[in-house]
Amino acid sequence: MARLAIMSIGDELCIGQVVNTNAAWIAQQCSELGFEVFRHVTVGDDRDEIVAELRRLWERSDGIITTGGLGPTHDDLTVEALCEFLGEEAIEHPEVRARLEELVQQRGIAAREQVLRQAWIPRSAIPLPNPVGQAPGIWVEREGKFLLALPGVPAEMRSILEQARERLRSFRLQRGGAIRLSRTLLTAGIAEADLAALLGEPAQLLPEGVRLAFLPSFTGVRLRLDARAESPAHAEALLEQALGRLRERIDAYLVGEGAEVSLAQAVGTLLRQRRETLAVAESCTAGLLGAAITEVAGSSEYFLGGLIVYSNAAKVELLSVPPELLERVGAVSREVAELLAQNVRQRFAATYGVGITGIAGPGGGTPEKPVGTVWIALATPQGVQAQRYWFRHDRAGNRQRAVAAALTMLFRHLRALSPSDAAVHAVGN
Amino acid sequence: MARLAIMSIGDELCIGQVVNTNAAWIAQQCSELGFEVFRHVTVGDDRDEIVAELRRLWERSDGIITTGGLGPTHDDLTVEALCEFLGEEAIEHPEVRARLEELVQQRGIAAREQVLRQAWIPRSAIPLPNPVGQAPGIWVEREGKFLLALPGVPAEMRSILEQARERLRSFRLQRGGAIRLSRTLLTAGIAEADLAALLGEPAQLLPEGVRLAFLPSFTGVRLRLDARAESPAHAEALLEQALGRLRERIDAYLVGEGAEVSLAQAVGTLLRQRRETLAVAESCTAGLLGAAITEVAGSSEYFLGGLIVYSNAAKVELLSVPPELLERVGAVSREVAELLAQNVRQRFAATYGVGITGIAGPGGGTPEKPVGTVWIALATPQGVQAQRYWFRHDRAGNRQRAVAAALTMLFRHLRALSPSDAAVHAVGN
Repeated sequence: MARLAIMSIGDELCIGQVVNTNAAWIAQQCSELGFEVFRHVTVGDDRDEIVAELRRLWERSDGIITTGGLGPTHDDLTVEALCEFLGEEAIEHPEVRARLEELVQQRGIAAREQVLRQAWIPRSAIPLPNPVGQAPGIWVEREGKFLLALPGVPAEMRSILEQARERLRSFRLQRGGAIRLSRTLLTAGIAEADLAALLGEPAQLLPEGVRLAFLPSFTGVRLRLDARAESPAHAEALLEQALGRLRERIDAYLVGEGAEVSLAQAVGTLLRQRRETLAVAESCTAGLLGAAITEVAGSSEYFLGGLIVYSNAAKVELLSVPPELLERVGAVSREVAELLAQNVRQRFAATYGVGITGIAGPGGGTPEKPVGTVWIALATPQGVQAQRYWFRHDRAGNRQRAVAAALTMLFRHLRALSPSDAAVHAVGN
Repeated sequence: MARLAIMSIGDELCIGQVVNTNAAWIAQQCSELGFEVFRHVTVGDDRDEIVAELRRLWERSDGIITTGGLGPTHDDLTVEALCEFLGEEAIEHPEVRARLEELVQQRGIAAREQVLRQAWIPRSAIPLPNPVGQAPGIWVEREGKFLLALPGVPAEMRSILEQARERLRSFRLQRGGAIRLSRTLLTAGIAEADLAALLGEPAQLLPEGVRLAFLPSFTGVRLRLDARAESPAHAEALLEQALGRLRERIDAYLVGEGAEVSLAQAVGTLLRQRRETLAVAESCTAGLLGAAITEVAGSSEYFLGGLIVYSNAAKVELLSVPPELLERVGAVSREVAELLAQNVRQRFAATYGVGITGIAGPGGGTPEKPVGTVWIALATPQGVQAQRYWFRHDRAGNRQRAVAAALTMLFRHLRALSPSDAAVHAVGN
């Protein structure tokens, strides 16, 4: 076992101004590397508190990862706290300083001295370059344990953790002992209870030593397999066996494997395999669907573009929706969703067109069309289909759910056309 | 002072499968009530670990709020842990049991015994009804401190905390002592270090008892003021004084006040005040700017729509970008960005048009136009301006930064036209 504690530093986290997405991401990455994350702790910008928690966690952990407090301002206290905890002073690292000098020049930053302070780190530490920001990560090993300090800005934190991945992996392997590995699967278009029924009793389905957890969310139900074994190789083998059995039962609903897999990625893989293209017309989501589709690198191979027809005038002028239709059935209707999908498909000469029109809220609802009512249509070479949804969330939640529903509709259509499990494996990495 | 610790319970949180939004929400609510949230801790579904953390936190807190582990399944251990911590047994509450019996009947739940287990809570505790789920909240007072246990499902947690709000408020008032209140400001268009230089030494700028923290992000630098005083009224007065001094120095960069304020909201407020409208043409951001603008409820008053011109064909056909121009200067160029902005403005008959074209990555970069190069243009009734950016992040980061840069450009333009501080105050609530 290798027990890991995650410590997040910052008043903004303590008082709830910022949601701590960093801790979850780090925990996920490190769990996949075989660490047992047993504690997350958040402390404010207070040197003594930081030192006290470091001391307490160090006794009970094989490793600690901290985030936050590495920046250039007076409330960034992590380096000071680390020095006190380690009982050593900070020294300046010339190569970090050189990079910071370069940044100061390139970007014309006035506060040079403040920026350069970030080249000072504890004497026994190794700096890990920060390619997307200023403060380097800090890696310390002693007493057979490690301490990794990362900046709080998510992109910087991620980028440095990626670099530290090999260090973490080899630390974990040297450590030996029982290991827990996890795999995640994403499904779409099936409810949690139906999925559970389809899979039957986990104890009968899965090899011994593997546990199954359900995690429903609006983008689909995720399944997590946890295997505990004496070696990574054995845990891997157990997981492979378990995955095989799951795949057999739920193939038609399987979007892909991996914690980061997304519906947009699976849709993209299928479109690319089929050499087909896509265009979207969005009213209430106003670009969110286009943005989700193009999160996938290389999406220009199949995504041609879209129209954000937020106003009725835009629906009429850009997508030839007849004003009298808007008058008669309203913008949020099967007829308008279908026209949006069909006309945007034609407009872009795409294989598929998607149309979304709805009432995101908080205003605009009526008894017949309450807030959260959304019509989504999919136009294909064979015709058009549309479905009405009623999401019962806030504005942001309703918009996100509409995007997930549109991608699910598209995924299920494409998956039915491609009955092999090509998509699953292609997305698996 | 009233020191509060928040403890989140659940394996899914420890391993990072779920982002802990509960802790942030509770912290925000309780900070507003005048509690000093000094620690968040997350522990797995392990009775001994839960008890150990309760003991440790109890010594250092005036109150503890826990979430999670109150459900009906075998891994819900919070009631057991509370009983051990409090040194008392659980008893059944008839009124909770009656409500659970009703639920079981209404919903035809098969696992009746499991559901009814949730009527058992520690002897000295008061159950707080759960109107949107099963397990009640649990309130315990002893030694002049309190312990509040809430379910982990966000909607249930929120609903029960709302009911407990008066208990928390009166506990806080009885407690007396120093109180800490916070305010947040969002700035745009200025780097953290330059902002720090502009503000000078915080101790000289701000009244005593007020602290200033910088929270940089790609949407701008947030500033947080914390005032500590003997009464809420005094803390408010200190904050007002501090805000006044900050406003004087950084007025031109000030987007607005409040933890939830966003650039999109500030832009929306200015457009609404000026009765002007906006349309966007997006290539590499592919809808992300439209989505950001329409996060604001009521944005249909000023946002007309947009075109997602992801492919070159779409740029040519939908926005009349000459193919020979694309050939000559490339899609990622000043000329194309300006044409996108100007033509989308015309197309929608909007006051302003924004055009974005860039290389989000990871592929597509060249030595002259590396990954992260983005041209952004703003077309106004007076003409068009464009700026080149070079973001050095991953695909998602580059796209988000392009959106933030476009909103910043628009904000600064509108802010210069509305030199009063109307925007600041209008957005302030």
